[in-house]
Amino acid sequence: MMPISLEPVALAHTPFKEKFAIPRQPALAPSATAEIRLLPPFDSPLALQGLEQVSHIWLLFQFHQALSQHGQAPHLRVRPPRLGGNEKIGVFASRATHRPNSLGQSVVTLDRIEGCSLWVSGIDLLDGTPILDIKPYVPYADAITHAENHIAAQSPELIPVTWQENALEQARIHGRRLQQDVVGLIEQCLMQDPKPAYQVPSAERQYGVQLWDLNVRWHYPDVNCIRVLAVEPV
Amino acid sequence: MMPISLEPVALAHTPFKEKFAIPRQPALAPSATAEIRLLPPFDSPLALQGLEQVSHIWLLFQFHQALSQHGQAPHLRVRPPRLGGNEKIGVFASRATHRPNSLGQSVVTLDRIEGCSLWVSGIDLLDGTPILDIKPYVPYADAITHAENHIAAQSPELIPVTWQENALEQARIHGRRLQQDVVGLIEQCLMQDPKPAYQVPSAERQYGVQLWDLNVRWHYPDVNCIRVLAVEPV
Repeated sequence: MMPISLEPVALAHTPFKEKFAIPRQPALAPSATAEIRLLPPFDSPLALQGLEQVSHIWLLFQFHQALSQHGQAPHLRVRPPRLGGNEKIGVFASRATHRPNSLGQSVVTLDRIEGCSLWVSGIDLLDGTPILDIKPYVPYADAITHAENHIAAQSPELIPVTWQENALEQARIHGRRLQQDVVGLIEQCLMQDPKPAYQVPSAERQYGVQLWDLNVRWHYPDVNCIRVLAVEPV
Repeated sequence: MMPISLEPVALAHTPFKEKFAIPRQPALAPSATAEIRLLPPFDSPLALQGLEQVSHIWLLFQFHQALSQHGQAPHLRVRPPRLGGNEKIGVFASRATHRPNSLGQSVVTLDRIEGCSLWVSGIDLLDGTPILDIKPYVPYADAITHAENHIAAQSPELIPVTWQENALEQARIHGRRLQQDVVGLIEQCLMQDPKPAYQVPSAERQYGVQLWDLNVRWHYPDVNCIRVLAVEPV
């Protein structure tokens, strides 16, 4: 069969500069906002006409930081973080990022449209992700409330997030500078516990991630509790 | 940006030999069954391991009969059948088949897995459709019951389907031969009224479509009522 050639229709501009700590359930991270900006030759408001009548959209995109090495076939089985990172399942039974054709799909809230940009929230895409298609969510077709999935039956459990006083003050200052809900996004990402499920961290071990231009550092004072230590420019 | 090159991971073998009469709401066509057969190098049961634990799957596919002419940019606006076929909206506000990158996504019921084949129902894909990815449906993330879509707020209206006696007998005979629910699929497809919304058919005008190797013919004795006239081998 002929290979199929695609080109991005838009680019995602998001707070997430690395894969670590991207929300596993983006619907629980309303402060994860992004701009989806149309690229030529699709950069016309005409292409979005009518979309203001829908509350949610599907983004089809490329996992651009999870591409296979040239000539190397993707694995047929993967170890999803969901299963603790140790158990293997078929790649088509998982939504793992390393997969044949590197295609992803996410549903996000459409907050507003401005010219050739869509402002969305509840997103789980890396900054710079190439968007391959945008489609309206159709509740009567897409919302299958009786569907069953016994691999991922429930939303991941949340853990409490606390702040060192100076870290909270830093987050507030940068929130005002960036005009973003920095405190909210950090809490929403960390309460989903980004570390691999099989890790049992010591209280001394520090973790970090970049959100926007900020380096966020935290530790686990107890196994199932996070304390944010610092929020500093990279 | 670099073009992105994809290859099919599977092929869909479906009853639908042409676009006309494919269910607009496939969930209401449980007799639309199909085999999704993995292609090399993904044709291993390992790639499907664990998928038996989910009731529904997403298929990402190529609208292979709706590709743009070489070098011709897709239209930025389309006329969806939903709006009577006359009104234009932005291509990204629609799920029209003629679209940038020709990508489609459908959720279907997973009935069973046999080796490298998935047997699914409630499908709306043309026979021979190249499948680009298979992902499990995740109810807690995908079923957004509070989502709103004022372009396609409700499922299309259904109309009654009646049979000429000999047509019903023909359908039953071919159903036994094909080991398929021929009567059910014809009813489920036609009650969604395949004709363009702006057409007002005379009782004399006959319509036809191919399902499997059968030519199905019907007419509209009244504007909002279908009568099946014949079900004959092509």
